[in-house]
Amino acid sequence: MKKIINKTDNLIKEMLEGIVDAYPNTFKRIEDYPRTLVYANSPVKDKVAIATGGGSGHLPLFLGYIGKNLIDGASVGEVFSSPSANEMLAVTKAIDSGKGVLYLYGNYGGDIMNFDMAAEMAEDEGIKVLKSIGADDVASAPKEKKEDRRGIAGIMFGYKIAGAAAAKGAPLEEVKKVTDAALENVRTMGVALSPCTIPAVGKPTFEIAEDEMEIGMGIHGERGIKREKLKTADEIAEFMTERIIDDLPYVKGDEVAVLVNGLGATAQQELYVTFRKVNEILKAKGIKTYKAFIGEYATSMEMKGLSVSLFKLNDEFKELLDIPVEAPMLLQQF
Amino acid sequence: MKKIINKTDNLIKEMLEGIVDAYPNTFKRIEDYPRTLVYANSPVKDKVAIATGGGSGHLPLFLGYIGKNLIDGASVGEVFSSPSANEMLAVTKAIDSGKGVLYLYGNYGGDIMNFDMAAEMAEDEGIKVLKSIGADDVASAPKEKKEDRRGIAGIMFGYKIAGAAAAKGAPLEEVKKVTDAALENVRTMGVALSPCTIPAVGKPTFEIAEDEMEIGMGIHGERGIKREKLKTADEIAEFMTERIIDDLPYVKGDEVAVLVNGLGATAQQELYVTFRKVNEILKAKGIKTYKAFIGEYATSMEMKGLSVSLFKLNDEFKELLDIPVEAPMLLQQF
Repeated sequence: MKKIINKTDNLIKEMLEGIVDAYPNTFKRIEDYPRTLVYANSPVKDKVAIATGGGSGHLPLFLGYIGKNLIDGASVGEVFSSPSANEMLAVTKAIDSGKGVLYLYGNYGGDIMNFDMAAEMAEDEGIKVLKSIGADDVASAPKEKKEDRRGIAGIMFGYKIAGAAAAKGAPLEEVKKVTDAALENVRTMGVALSPCTIPAVGKPTFEIAEDEMEIGMGIHGERGIKREKLKTADEIAEFMTERIIDDLPYVKGDEVAVLVNGLGATAQQELYVTFRKVNEILKAKGIKTYKAFIGEYATSMEMKGLSVSLFKLNDEFKELLDIPVEAPMLLQQF
Repeated sequence: MKKIINKTDNLIKEMLEGIVDAYPNTFKRIEDYPRTLVYANSPVKDKVAIATGGGSGHLPLFLGYIGKNLIDGASVGEVFSSPSANEMLAVTKAIDSGKGVLYLYGNYGGDIMNFDMAAEMAEDEGIKVLKSIGADDVASAPKEKKEDRRGIAGIMFGYKIAGAAAAKGAPLEEVKKVTDAALENVRTMGVALSPCTIPAVGKPTFEIAEDEMEIGMGIHGERGIKREKLKTADEIAEFMTERIIDDLPYVKGDEVAVLVNGLGATAQQELYVTFRKVNEILKAKGIKTYKAFIGEYATSMEMKGLSVSLFKLNDEFKELLDIPVEAPMLLQQF
């Protein structure tokens, strides 16, 4: 295992310290809850708060989405493990302004269980909580069972819409409604070329030959649709984009936001080469790229590969998508 | 070689197409000069223009720094090869508003030769050109020979300062002066854990054992200071930070901007763990972190490793550092 870390037991602790030290104007800790971070100005007066969380190892997910007009707080677990309900409750209490909290997280069993428990405890303390779940991975279940799909990089569009709607002053029910509507219009598919290594385990999550790729692999190494010889960027983009387009479906006249997300070890030039083909396919079908997002939005540590997401827009989504945010882990404050 | 690309001959062309398609409001092409990009609003009236360039394979260097209040144009070569003087001349002509152009690039023989030729040709056409050179890599030559040092990630502070000074309306000589002063106050050191593969070559640039790292390795795989067993993040941070601090030297009471730059395949959590220690060392020495930059600012495709840079600030630098920019390849427009 070749990583620049110290003791694996201290990894999450030290990562959180690094984040807070780097951006002290954005992040605030909650005493006694070391695996939580909340927006420095929390609770934001009269605003619905948004909370998220999940396993570590996916930066900038989840902590990096905390910021102005975005997410108010998050709790993380060990690498690829759920955060605890108690920590999520602590986040909830720290960010609630009295207007309630929306939990927005990916569709994984452990996360669902812990967020459900946290929601119950929060309700007991008089905090209103609603939930929205990201389940954008087209490869993880057929359309008839889309409620079983895993949540991957496309959840970032949910964060953006939820954060913007809350910033505009929408009440909790409306923030949930527009977030759910956005998530319904997001589809993602990924391809993995290499595994990653969970530090505490010390060996790669799976094996894959030097000339192979796996289409549809999950961000924790979950089985995909097919494993085959590595194809060209154009062929990979075409397969994934066609599957995504057919699934919603996205149709002629649609406007979309496009995300080409690097999984951690993919050279940026590969992301742009892939985007080029995705955009060409969309154009040929009469689907317009309203805005492009290219970079690392949800990673699997040092996994090599990428995912493509589409988000079908309407006027409301476009307006919300264009509301500026301040989130230094994403924006790099340059 | 495991990359998501098409024919290697088309890589740079397709990468540039992807970039322009993704951010059409930021980038503009120059007809007949396919390896150049300029800011969409070029030439910006009454503003000194900044040009850069170098080999491909380092995104977001060089093209990603094009944007508002930042760089006006860039030319790139093949992976790890200099751009041509003719292309750089075309960039120069496309961005000059009549106020002259500052060339800002790294200290590499091929780049120097081509930028020098371009400058001569530009002067022949009546465009005033001055040059500033980034040479921040402490590991590449001793302090007595610092003019021989390679330019690596720290050049991004030069871009920021040059772009901001030009945006504020400074004349060419002053833009060069403040940029040179900034570059004089930047020091960087890197560590590599893995090589990368030049697509046209098809095999890794060097070999390194699974338990080894090389301190001070250049971003094209140039020899570093020492190769040894992989150490902890804290030990690596300490060695590099001490060497950097001693070199300027940075002293008690200084304020610095800190850059922890991922070389391409390094998990973000490793960057934050490393930043944590760098910041701790600075604090212990009475050096204050004014602003942190953590992420991929200058890569070597899928090389694993990172670099640490310090930039010693004064009031003028702080003011320039805080001028906002619009550069979607850096800011991801979230």
